[in-house]
Amino acid sequence: MIQFQCDYNEGAHPLIIKRLTETNMEQTVGYGEDPHCEEARRLIKQACQSDNADVHFLVGGTQANTTVIAHILRPYQGVLAATSGHINVHETGAIESTGHKVLAIPTEDGKLTAKQIDEAMQAHIHEDGPEHMVQPGMVYLSFPTEIGTIYSHGELKAIRTVCNKYDLPLFVDGARLGYGLCSPECDLTLPQLAQLADVFYIGGTKVGALFGEAVVIMNEALKRDFRYSIKQHGGMLAKGRLLGLQFATLFTGNLYFDIAQHAIDEAMRIKAALQTKGIGFLIDSPTNQQFPIFTDTQIATLSEHFMLSLWQRIDESHTAMRICTSWATKPESTDELIRAIENL
Amino acid sequence: MIQFQCDYNEGAHPLIIKRLTETNMEQTVGYGEDPHCEEARRLIKQACQSDNADVHFLVGGTQANTTVIAHILRPYQGVLAATSGHINVHETGAIESTGHKVLAIPTEDGKLTAKQIDEAMQAHIHEDGPEHMVQPGMVYLSFPTEIGTIYSHGELKAIRTVCNKYDLPLFVDGARLGYGLCSPECDLTLPQLAQLADVFYIGGTKVGALFGEAVVIMNEALKRDFRYSIKQHGGMLAKGRLLGLQFATLFTGNLYFDIAQHAIDEAMRIKAALQTKGIGFLIDSPTNQQFPIFTDTQIATLSEHFMLSLWQRIDESHTAMRICTSWATKPESTDELIRAIENL
Amino acid sequence: MIQFQCDYNEGAHPLIIKRLTETNMEQTVGYGEDPHCEEARRLIKQACQSDNADVHFLVGGTQANTTVIAHILRPYQGVLAATSGHINVHETGAIESTGHKVLAIPTEDGKLTAKQIDEAMQAHIHEDGPEHMVQPGMVYLSFPTEIGTIYSHGELKAIRTVCNKYDLPLFVDGARLGYGLCSPECDLTLPQLAQLADVFYIGGTKVGALFGEAVVIMNEALKRDFRYSIKQHGGMLAKGRLLGLQFATLFTGNLYFDIAQHAIDEAMRIKAALQTKGIGFLIDSPTNQQFPIFTDTQIATLSEHFMLSLWQRIDESHTAMRICTSWATKPESTDELIRAIENL
Amino acid sequence: MIQFQCDYNEGAHPLIIKRLTETNMEQTVGYGEDPHCEEARRLIKQACQSDNADVHFLVGGTQANTTVIAHILRPYQGVLAATSGHINVHETGAIESTGHKVLAIPTEDGKLTAKQIDEAMQAHIHEDGPEHMVQPGMVYLSFPTEIGTIYSHGELKAIRTVCNKYDLPLFVDGARLGYGLCSPECDLTLPQLAQLADVFYIGGTKVGALFGEAVVIMNEALKRDFRYSIKQHGGMLAKGRLLGLQFATLFTGNLYFDIAQHAIDEAMRIKAALQTKGIGFLIDSPTNQQFPIFTDTQIATLSEHFMLSLWQRIDESHTAMRICTSWATKPESTDELIRAIENL
Repeated sequence: MIQFQCDYNEGAHPLIIKRLTETNMEQTVGYGEDPHCEEARRLIKQACQSDNADVHFLVGGTQANTTVIAHILRPYQGVLAATSGHINVHETGAIESTGHKVLAIPTEDGKLTAKQIDEAMQAHIHEDGPEHMVQPGMVYLSFPTEIGTIYSHGELKAIRTVCNKYDLPLFVDGARLGYGLCSPECDLTLPQLAQLADVFYIGGTKVGALFGEAVVIMNEALKRDFRYSIKQHGGMLAKGRLLGLQFATLFTGNLYFDIAQHAIDEAMRIKAALQTKGIGFLIDSPTNQQFPIFTDTQIATLSEHFMLSLWQRIDESHTAMRICTSWATKPESTDELIRAIENL
Repeated sequence: MIQFQCDYNEGAHPLIIKRLTETNMEQTVGYGEDPHCEEARRLIKQACQSDNADVHFLVGGTQANTTVIAHILRPYQGVLAATSGHINVHETGAIESTGHKVLAIPTEDGKLTAKQIDEAMQAHIHEDGPEHMVQPGMVYLSFPTEIGTIYSHGELKAIRTVCNKYDLPLFVDGARLGYGLCSPECDLTLPQLAQLADVFYIGGTKVGALFGEAVVIMNEALKRDFRYSIKQHGGMLAKGRLLGLQFATLFTGNLYFDIAQHAIDEAMRIKAALQTKGIGFLIDSPTNQQFPIFTDTQIATLSEHFMLSLWQRIDESHTAMRICTSWATKPESTDELIRAIENL
Repeated sequence: MIQFQCDYNEGAHPLIIKRLTETNMEQTVGYGEDPHCEEARRLIKQACQSDNADVHFLVGGTQANTTVIAHILRPYQGVLAATSGHINVHETGAIESTGHKVLAIPTEDGKLTAKQIDEAMQAHIHEDGPEHMVQPGMVYLSFPTEIGTIYSHGELKAIRTVCNKYDLPLFVDGARLGYGLCSPECDLTLPQLAQLADVFYIGGTKVGALFGEAVVIMNEALKRDFRYSIKQHGGMLAKGRLLGLQFATLFTGNLYFDIAQHAIDEAMRIKAALQTKGIGFLIDSPTNQQFPIFTDTQIATLSEHFMLSLWQRIDESHTAMRICTSWATKPESTDELIRAIENL
Repeated sequence: MIQFQCDYNEGAHPLIIKRLTETNMEQTVGYGEDPHCEEARRLIKQACQSDNADVHFLVGGTQANTTVIAHILRPYQGVLAATSGHINVHETGAIESTGHKVLAIPTEDGKLTAKQIDEAMQAHIHEDGPEHMVQPGMVYLSFPTEIGTIYSHGELKAIRTVCNKYDLPLFVDGARLGYGLCSPECDLTLPQLAQLADVFYIGGTKVGALFGEAVVIMNEALKRDFRYSIKQHGGMLAKGRLLGLQFATLFTGNLYFDIAQHAIDEAMRIKAALQTKGIGFLIDSPTNQQFPIFTDTQIATLSEHFMLSLWQRIDESHTAMRICTSWATKPESTDELIRAIENL
């Protein structure tokens, strides 16, 4: 059984395992204040072309989202997000557990628009008695989104402009950041993202690490006391060096992007095969997640050899499935899947 | 300026003021354990035809909703509610501030259906990895709804059946309960409501009291320690007798229903005048809130003498306004408004 | 049975009942934006000799404390308070329910000292890894304290100085403020308090009103969006005018202080009688709460005609009781109690 | 510089690194439902001699404590704990951030007694108006405690009895469980602990793992929906197998206990050397943490070659330091430290 159902099926890039092994018996101080974390911070700041970024390492995505959002918002504020946003659907109410409403905005392609944000703010401001409503206090978006789509540089700049207009911090969830930045359709660079976002995170769990997300805080006003928030949310890893070491490895040379590019290449091969076969898609995704709409018969056939992920029932005989590639996808596995698609 | 913009413009029914005055210098113990509260509890249980009801008095609606919902839910659970439900839009995230997501379901007329609840539960149960989602833990509905509509006895029974199927407590927000029960279209009685709901509250603030909501807990399992929850949410009034005394007055004789009936009668006169004039409505409301759609010119004319409430912009030249009657509406004020409508 | 067990046994000062009656059928807008609230705000600002104060009206003390503290603190901060402070013992964890730890400091007389606050801050700052601890984010104290003691002007100024040193907002719980300010031992005025505190509240529930606490925000930085916090915590009374009207009455002329002075006079008469009788005290209280230590036999005798409040078991045969006077205490009731004490 | 300041200076036991390496490119499903987690669960249940235990793997201790406590308590309940308990002092208010008060009880040796718990419950029950106080809802203790002491089997049985009396769940924080169970003074076994506790966790972070704590739920009533709580608190590791694999390694053969025994042996050698030298202790600890009281001069001398942890200032010239051994402590490092102690 070959697994394409998600992008966290395997362990870590072999170089990370190697570094873990080599450094295993080193003695370091805890909680992210060791030399490996320092080195990782230096490398990430360099990759972002920013000396002023604050970089913190957290273990997972839900933890990163919750910690950042709870750190930013005032108690009566909520976070604007796409209805399909991860924080709105797949985190068991972690955001609400910290007291904040997710102010969900429906989208067609998983992407918020500057116009939608502007309208939400206008609606709030012109409410008669706005204090009876949750005040929008920040914007959350994912790059790429949960359904693989990405924002263009222009779209993000427009969102930044509207955020500036209303003094709204912009937080970008980059759980799959590498896969977004390496998409053939992406016209955005990491330094550009760092300039546009107040906070974002660089996903490790899905892009080569055993686990770990690097939260990058660009906005000076949001940096204060962030370590208190990490600790309170259970995110301060005792052996923090495990995170530093992984990100230092990923950001040495071009490793993070090289392995992300590999996932994209494999995904594009699968996408092309599906298109050739005349299979439709739930959405046109330019990243490592593809959402083909199969017939139940096709799914039954593929499921004999491949684990895909059931995404959304379309009608009585069709279902959108998720196919994920990752840094770890073997080309021969892709070959096999493509053959199976061709034979459907 | 005559005010029709809401149903809490005036103080309290004169009998309540009289009783407050008469009892003012009595000495009683605090926190709702005085004889007036005891008497009010007895009368409300009698009105509900239930000996087993637990009756608690809280000051306001947001407080009642928050206290009940936080008391019922487990931390990872949310409350199913109409998207237009008061807890979802007009309580500044009070529910979320206690850690719980409002699981909003869009409706056309403000009313949840048994089918929608069933579908939400089925969707949750069949989710791959339901623990990544908020678990629906109870149902919230308002009677009447925020836009004046009411559930039929049959509709509520169907909702009860689906709640039983999934072991979901049903909570009915009765901020305007009297106005719902006295509607000409209502086929439900207070004892029937008490049989169908696990918890509900009888609104006083909008129906004759200075303030106050009587929370009635029918479900044995939800009664335990409710006074702790009241206190924690700041709802335990030191001079609790003020609440007991008001509800004792309202439930002596048929006062609560008599004054609610008056509001409905006045509302129906206004509704008829609007219909005669050929004015459309946002929704066909059988209760004390009416939502006519006026042209901007009509609004300007009416606003010279009447305060109405802007509800929803419909198009470039039309707006739905809210007109509220209440126990305090003077027939001559209604007459004046009707004349103004006729002259539009 | 004459009740001396607390200071909220009766209704409201007759002038308040009179005003409620007179204004009952007035139509006003809701939520504290009516002319009565405006008038009360004007009078309170005048009494505080401050044009810049923001004045908000809440229903009760727990609600006021919770709303103010949750409004001020960052999520990882706690509030410094005396171990005996109301928020630490008698609010069912309301502060914690908003996510914040009460950082309790033991005291002998219910009063925090500037030195204790300084030490707590030094301890935190010099902690190795302060982010593993709750950060002290504000100071809470009550005036008078839960056991009737009061801060001198000098003591409060010293606390203000240490608060300035660490940029800690100072919040004064004035549930019994009138009784503190009218104490023969008090050398502090309301305007002086307003200058020293960042936020405080003027208690109405225990000093002449049916209910109500007037929160006064002096610190500009804490004013923003406070109405959102009120609403979220269920404290925004629909018929807000009831609060405005009560405080307008209390702050017209010198009523608030006159009636507080009455309570103090009665308390001092009782205190003198106890002293004459040779009865000891748990604490030397200069305000309306007295804590004599009686033998069980004495308590049994007094309990035949008086309701006192059991405060603290001292030893096998002695108990400290609380005797409260209030604005409503009848001189003849005091006379009776004094006679009973003399006859013990 | 040799580090003795804590027990999380190194990576993981080499066998764990070996297993991580061997399994790195395996494809498994996520979130703790893979074969490695299954195997670890089986082994832990076997070690606990319990077929009915539910075993869940979390990343760290603060996360485990917060998740378990928030899962158990009702909103108005608090957790009884020693004042020195980890949740009360070193978790940045994580428990309070979920809405619950830590009901701290002062102890001399870090250990709660059955009598103290009984007294706390009696005090609450007999309170006049208990609903104004936080209700004690569970007991938290650590084994060993934060200062290295351990409960005897008899002490724990007494606590269990009082917990049964009041229906209080007992939660045992076992961040250093191995070091407690392997202490020469310990008369408790893992299966006995499993019988006495409702929930406990087996610490991995400090006992041989890179990270990870195995939460064991014995009480049937507390098992329901625990995975929702894990996810909500950000503790559901995507590549959950990393946790399963580590615990499977530690509980294969006797590895967990063998390596814990090593730490104890080293600690006892250091303790003996300190005693021989006539150095006093803050507390008599029978586990891997020792708290000698040194003069400042002695600390200066030791600090040239060793990193110890500053624990508590004793007087103007003395300080209690923490010396930790662990599974990773090299005998030759211990030898060096002992020589240095002898030469003081």
